[in-house]
Amino acid sequence: MAKRKLRIVPLGGLGEIGKNRMALEYRDDIIVIDAGLMFPKEDMLGIDLVVPDISYLLERRDKIRGIIVTHGHEDHTGALPYLLPQLGVPVYSTRLTHGLISVKLKEHRVLTKAKLKVIQPGQTITLGKFRIEFLHVCHSIPDSTGLIIHTPLGIVVHSGDFKLDHTPVEGTPTDLARLAQLGAQGVLLLFSDSTYVEIPGYTPSERSVGETLDRIIAQAPGRVIIATFASLISRIQQVIDAAAKHQRQVFILGRSMVDSVRMASELGYLVAPPDVLGRLDGLRKLAHDRIVLLTTGSQGEPTSALVRIANRDHPRAHIIPGDTVIVSATPIPGNESLVSRTVDNLFRQGAQVFYDKLEKVHVHGHGSQEELKMMLSLVKPKFFVPIHGEYRHLTLHAQLAQSLGIPQSNTFVIEDGDILDLTPEGGRVVGRVSSGNVYVDGLGVGDIGSVVLRDRRLLSRDGIVVVIMAIDKRRGKIVGRPDIVSRGFIETGETEDLLEQIRDLVVKTLDHGSDHPIEWSFINVKVKETLGRFLYQQTKRRPMILPMAVEV
Amino acid sequence: MAKRKLRIVPLGGLGEIGKNRMALEYRDDIIVIDAGLMFPKEDMLGIDLVVPDISYLLERRDKIRGIIVTHGHEDHTGALPYLLPQLGVPVYSTRLTHGLISVKLKEHRVLTKAKLKVIQPGQTITLGKFRIEFLHVCHSIPDSTGLIIHTPLGIVVHSGDFKLDHTPVEGTPTDLARLAQLGAQGVLLLFSDSTYVEIPGYTPSERSVGETLDRIIAQAPGRVIIATFASLISRIQQVIDAAAKHQRQVFILGRSMVDSVRMASELGYLVAPPDVLGRLDGLRKLAHDRIVLLTTGSQGEPTSALVRIANRDHPRAHIIPGDTVIVSATPIPGNESLVSRTVDNLFRQGAQVFYDKLEKVHVHGHGSQEELKMMLSLVKPKFFVPIHGEYRHLTLHAQLAQSLGIPQSNTFVIEDGDILDLTPEGGRVVGRVSSGNVYVDGLGVGDIGSVVLRDRRLLSRDGIVVVIMAIDKRRGKIVGRPDIVSRGFIETGETEDLLEQIRDLVVKTLDHGSDHPIEWSFINVKVKETLGRFLYQQTKRRPMILPMAVEV
Repeated sequence: MAKRKLRIVPLGGLGEIGKNRMALEYRDDIIVIDAGLMFPKEDMLGIDLVVPDISYLLERRDKIRGIIVTHGHEDHTGALPYLLPQLGVPVYSTRLTHGLISVKLKEHRVLTKAKLKVIQPGQTITLGKFRIEFLHVCHSIPDSTGLIIHTPLGIVVHSGDFKLDHTPVEGTPTDLARLAQLGAQGVLLLFSDSTYVEIPGYTPSERSVGETLDRIIAQAPGRVIIATFASLISRIQQVIDAAAKHQRQVFILGRSMVDSVRMASELGYLVAPPDVLGRLDGLRKLAHDRIVLLTTGSQGEPTSALVRIANRDHPRAHIIPGDTVIVSATPIPGNESLVSRTVDNLFRQGAQVFYDKLEKVHVHGHGSQEELKMMLSLVKPKFFVPIHGEYRHLTLHAQLAQSLGIPQSNTFVIEDGDILDLTPEGGRVVGRVSSGNVYVDGLGVGDIGSVVLRDRRLLSRDGIVVVIMAIDKRRGKIVGRPDIVSRGFIETGETEDLLEQIRDLVVKTLDHGSDHPIEWSFINVKVKETLGRFLYQQTKRRPMILPMAVEV
Repeated sequence: MAKRKLRIVPLGGLGEIGKNRMALEYRDDIIVIDAGLMFPKEDMLGIDLVVPDISYLLERRDKIRGIIVTHGHEDHTGALPYLLPQLGVPVYSTRLTHGLISVKLKEHRVLTKAKLKVIQPGQTITLGKFRIEFLHVCHSIPDSTGLIIHTPLGIVVHSGDFKLDHTPVEGTPTDLARLAQLGAQGVLLLFSDSTYVEIPGYTPSERSVGETLDRIIAQAPGRVIIATFASLISRIQQVIDAAAKHQRQVFILGRSMVDSVRMASELGYLVAPPDVLGRLDGLRKLAHDRIVLLTTGSQGEPTSALVRIANRDHPRAHIIPGDTVIVSATPIPGNESLVSRTVDNLFRQGAQVFYDKLEKVHVHGHGSQEELKMMLSLVKPKFFVPIHGEYRHLTLHAQLAQSLGIPQSNTFVIEDGDILDLTPEGGRVVGRVSSGNVYVDGLGVGDIGSVVLRDRRLLSRDGIVVVIMAIDKRRGKIVGRPDIVSRGFIETGETEDLLEQIRDLVVKTLDHGSDHPIEWSFINVKVKETLGRFLYQQTKRRPMILPMAVEV
């Protein structure tokens, strides 16, 4: 690598979550910012997790000085259990983030060997040639940070996931003063959160949700059931506050919600007046208008407490007349129909349901256009790289920066795997690194490739037809009639005729009339072709056809 | 059926589209309102179409006096090709709707026997005891109607799909005067469209989109590519008008768009100044800023023109620098990620893209809360049945009616298959009829049941493992080692070891050490159980296991 050059390599994050893993390099020093893990997309059938390809980092393991995690959300921490055992480098984060990472690593039995360091916002650490200061920002989880990275080429600012909340529920507003100070000093490069660049104006304060919750709880005739993200600590705090104000007790349902409330309470991020948090076995003794149930399931997750309640399938809770349900979240793209179905079922059970389309029961944790402009205006960077978002978000964010006067040649829309080399004079994408996906299905890591996914897709469309033929080894001829079994293709009762026709067709296809033995590869191709054509003619379906020969 | 009773049976429509098929009965007369067909939901793997179960109508065929279709959208006409051959009753609709139905029936080769009648808005027909007047309403397709149904019990108003557009692009506003007149006269029952009951305020006029299109086209430096629904005739008209104003020619891409423009032009619903509609082969000769391309693909449909352009996969068109793309639609629930991916790819190809989140490039065709209130206030019905929508929409619409003074006991939230009997005194759900779904996959109708769907779901999750055993017929023992083939389960390269272990396990499982022949049912269950447990332990996956025996 040439001298006096910063190298920027976004490495991970896909889909809705985007680019929450990045390597920043100067000569022989590399720091990694965030270690996110995306949720599987709909079309990745049966895949449990996806982790980024880390071959690029593994090859440069000796140069990596540490991983810096900006906040405790899954899409910034989720890959750590897979990365740490292989990289063995220290991880730096604030206290709540540290707590969440510890829980995660413990679950994966890799906590003991991990080197986790707790940093305070405002504190500075030195990693090789980089001096890194943690900057307090507001987001939908406490203890979120941006980063101020002093490099030999100048100051780099990384926004983290942020919004400019002037009245946050927990802690202080985003540290605008420090950003303005940096802007005055001169900033070489800004990385900034693009998630909500499509939304004009400002993202409302988290506190505005509290007002809605308070009003709905005040008017609710019976129990109130509130579903939200387990990580939304400030939302949970507002639920507790509103419940306390209206002399209600809060009961927690759902494992991740229970864990989250416990952890945040222990670390002091969640404060409940005495006796407000109730134990589930005390629920029956209370009048309905003294009860708030706080649950998981705001994304319609099929095994969550709220969805099981909506389906009358929860062992300990069901809807009773007079219940009010608040879904305090917006559906993550892809979850829309799961959430709608849950709301429908709750109405069907007789609940009154409030959700994002009807009431302001949720606000985003990311800044909208005016906040992104404010970040750009305060920091006044020479160069700009939009991060966190799909390609359209990055493009629009770059255009927003240009509208504020940053020359187009100084903004870089780069995608995962691009290598951007930056000097004080300018930047250039100089190549690409492998940043493909590693699929995790059950216990295996990386043993699912595109073939398996393609097969699952085919199987899910029209099912499978298995053709089993007994082949006379010596004569190379089919013996008797083949067995046909299908799954996911057609109702079995309806198919006797069709099965007979298939048997006839296979026998006819393979009856080549000579004594020359036929080859398996020929049988395989021939049966697939002929049968595929026949079944399509008969049914307009294209099941996967799996011919199998048993030699006898 | 008792005397003096109206019977209301919503029969079809599911998912996002809802209840667009209904039977209205009085003694021995039945009329059917709309014959919709929903698109398959995501979790109906490989299903091409879903049509409603029409057994209820078939059993009462003699009483059915006709089918009335309120407008020409797929979710109101799509089931006609399946229903008409079996019911043989006449279909009544306005002229454009008639044109669209004819095209559809012709495609399905059932046009010749169909009895299609064209009705003018304002015109009245008599079907048995029902006298039906077609009422002009605004919606996203011209020639949309509501229905005024004079019954022996009183007047029934059916809103159709409607909005109250005071400045529609085509035709006149919704006929409010007639509705007010009816309200003064006294209306027994109102059916009204619930699709956008969640949205406060008014749905903007279709004309407001024209202003956005005009502004974007005026400023576009090069070609403009506009994607919208082929049935959105007024949108297409606005594109033509804006193009003509800015001295551009319009070129049509995509089969359904070409067909739609041709049909609407022939019937006079679409008017283009001379030379504005161009032929594709003239495209190359024109300067870029003289070109508008009108395409399908606004829902990210994989084979549509826009998506193929976005993927550089269209034979005749691709993105060139300076192109502006307008996606003039909102994603239908479930299509969000397809649309986002298309927008990303268009940006990636270098286009500037405008879509619903950035600009007012689309308005809905359904009324929002204030319009629904207006309908209720004008018609002043004694009874109210919300239609068109999911359960939450129907519930909210009933609550809206109650907030305007209709007693709760006079509003009925009913679901498909419910039988609502209504007298002037009140209404009651008296039973349910079969209104399950009939799945269409390829050519078959109704031969796909829940077992096939469950299998496809299982197959799509972890694939399939086929175990083929040669069984000695006489001794009832397994001969040799079994063959194992898997699809969609695990990469083949990785599995040699695992396959060997499976073979060992199967042999061991079936080696019962006696000479007593083992039964197939035992083998089947035993192999499934043992292997299922083993594979789950080894891989945490649960593929479908298909044991097969070949007797030798």
